[in-house]
Amino acid sequence: MRTMAVIGTGLIGTSVALAAAGRGVSVYLSDRNRAAARTAAALGAGRAEDPPGPVDLAVLAVPPSRIAEVLIAAQARGLARAYTDVASVKAGPERAVLARAPEPSRYVGGHPLAGRERSGPLAARAELFQGRPWALTPHRLTSRAALDRGLELAELCGAAPVVMRSREHDEVVALTSHVPHLLASVMAARLRDGPAGVPLLAGQGVRDVTRIAAGDPRLWSDILRSNAAAMAGVVEELRADLARVAAALDVLAEGDVLAEDDVFARDDVLARDEALARDEALARDEVFAGDRGAGHDQGVRTLEDLLSRGVAGLAGLPRPGAAPPVAEAGLRILVPDRPGELARLLGAVTVLGISVDDVAVEAAEESGLRVRVPVPTADAERIGAKLGADGWDRAPAASVPAR
Amino acid sequence: MRTMAVIGTGLIGTSVALAAAGRGVSVYLSDRNRAAARTAAALGAGRAEDPPGPVDLAVLAVPPSRIAEVLIAAQARGLARAYTDVASVKAGPERAVLARAPEPSRYVGGHPLAGRERSGPLAARAELFQGRPWALTPHRLTSRAALDRGLELAELCGAAPVVMRSREHDEVVALTSHVPHLLASVMAARLRDGPAGVPLLAGQGVRDVTRIAAGDPRLWSDILRSNAAAMAGVVEELRADLARVAAALDVLAEGDVLAEDDVFARDDVLARDEALARDEALARDEVFAGDRGAGHDQGVRTLEDLLSRGVAGLAGLPRPGAAPPVAEAGLRILVPDRPGELARLLGAVTVLGISVDDVAVEAAEESGLRVRVPVPTADAERIGAKLGADGWDRAPAASVPAR
Repeated sequence: MRTMAVIGTGLIGTSVALAAAGRGVSVYLSDRNRAAARTAAALGAGRAEDPPGPVDLAVLAVPPSRIAEVLIAAQARGLARAYTDVASVKAGPERAVLARAPEPSRYVGGHPLAGRERSGPLAARAELFQGRPWALTPHRLTSRAALDRGLELAELCGAAPVVMRSREHDEVVALTSHVPHLLASVMAARLRDGPAGVPLLAGQGVRDVTRIAAGDPRLWSDILRSNAAAMAGVVEELRADLARVAAALDVLAEGDVLAEDDVFARDDVLARDEALARDEALARDEVFAGDRGAGHDQGVRTLEDLLSRGVAGLAGLPRPGAAPPVAEAGLRILVPDRPGELARLLGAVTVLGISVDDVAVEAAEESGLRVRVPVPTADAERIGAKLGADGWDRAPAASVPAR
Repeated sequence: MRTMAVIGTGLIGTSVALAAAGRGVSVYLSDRNRAAARTAAALGAGRAEDPPGPVDLAVLAVPPSRIAEVLIAAQARGLARAYTDVASVKAGPERAVLARAPEPSRYVGGHPLAGRERSGPLAARAELFQGRPWALTPHRLTSRAALDRGLELAELCGAAPVVMRSREHDEVVALTSHVPHLLASVMAARLRDGPAGVPLLAGQGVRDVTRIAAGDPRLWSDILRSNAAAMAGVVEELRADLARVAAALDVLAEGDVLAEDDVFARDDVLARDEALARDEALARDEVFAGDRGAGHDQGVRTLEDLLSRGVAGLAGLPRPGAAPPVAEAGLRILVPDRPGELARLLGAVTVLGISVDDVAVEAAEESGLRVRVPVPTADAERIGAKLGADGWDRAPAASVPAR
């Protein structure tokens, strides 16, 4: 690929252009907002001008609802030999292209799975796509040449191409991107009218849950409405789960009658005896006791069930940078019951390159704690010998079964 | 504080003990699971034995529903002169303590706002609480001495104490911790049965939204049910927002009639002309056109409204490590329209310690791009001179109004 046009020099378009320009491609930039195209050019992403002739590939970096119209206009003036886009919704634009574009065979849908909360060309980074998936969704008329250009673009940007059907893509991103964005927004919206203490006690958890809600509302509204059909089913399932949880919370809150009249906070001179009498009456009613009847138990089960399903669902998310699984043996070390001995072992295994997070106490025995240290099978002998030389009481690696 | 008892040597209890032991406090550890207490001791968090006499402070690091019973048992044997806990729900335990504990004046509620997804003593860190908020919720009978011990503990752990009412605390954490956890779980639960492509396309966004769902379901079920009343109201508001969104998605998906019979994917030999005929009929019906009637417009407005409210809500979350606001001036630089010139300016300001994320292109003028570089007022002259010496065409700092 020697020449490329990028239409739309926002975050993604400019990042694609920077990556391509950095690999020697001649890039021609345009944007409805002329200042944005000039900004991208001044960053080194290419030239803010029309190409002298048809380019090898045109990248349409516009919102999903605009892809077909922009493609039609570009093909009408013979801008490129192949076309792709970078929108996070694929089926709707594909249908519109098939229905209306002069040369649908020259178009392959694309979607690099990368982004930032900031938008606009100044937020662009040539390395934005490094190591990220880049979905390509050829339709039934896409030519081999167009698909190849899409693959070449993904590789040029350092991304890992994933070829899939547009429908499948949209169902996946509804679950992995669009509905999560919606939930982040719904949660963040509630913070606006929260009590005064919110900024004091807000921590990393709520920041993580709501982080992606910072995205540009106009762009995201376009994305969400373009994938409304795939999202609707997921949202229905979420609402069913939340309805069950809401019912459980109502039952569980019922015993909490004092919550409403706030007897302890109301009046600091209220005699404690009076309060005690009220509380004891409540205690007799088993408000504070463990067993509060079938509704309460059912409510607790509903919560535990949802929380457990959540933990199970996380297993399907790949951990970024996670090491590929290797055959693993477990060294067993007996740690004497002296203060700091276990900390000393953790320090020793860290030095050997083993994650402390994988170490486990298996049992507390008479003579000390039996600790399991997972090590790659290939390294078990060497690491065992090293720990033994440091004075740790260990079982020989060969005798320990793999986990 | 010279002596401390920690009841419950999980993640938080052991981390508190490690911090206190590191500051020279004699810590006595206990846990229903004796191996957990011995593990904490072997990490250097204290001794897994009963104290020889009453300690200065006992820290109850047990789930919210168990605080009152553990406090009652501890006071019955005269374990400590003051008591606190570390649970993330405060009003319910406080009521139970006031109702039933022998010496409620010796108890002050506490909640360090820190945690990890891993649980158990091996996950503990002495520095877990460094710089984090630590809520203390004295009730109407809490003695000054007990409150002072709570404050001393927070400071010993490097945390920032925040004194507030238990009810206020619970309302805040419902919004900043408990409901976000619930939403993370609801979202993660949906991933379990997702399409095969989920692991291929899942990125940082969905990982962040669902990260906290990895917490221990039994502990979190205890936390959520202990704060059911405060959560119920927030969940109702979320559900109302989601109901509006679901209705909007249904309307927006309606035009998407082809989504149901998948005409393009179904059969690769289907003649394009036939497909085109269908699509053109749809296009005539304005399915793909911009104006699809009042319901569609209303749906788009509903989405945009929610997304905008989400962005607004994020303003209430403090950014960790954000610099305190300083008086700021804006240098204006004229960047020539040559490829890479803007990148060169960004490099220059980065070297001067200015975040590239705060730089903005204000206007595209005849002679180039007018770029605003925000700088602390105190440094404006020095930085302006430096950029001027590097050949950048700038307005004098003094003439530029503050943002």
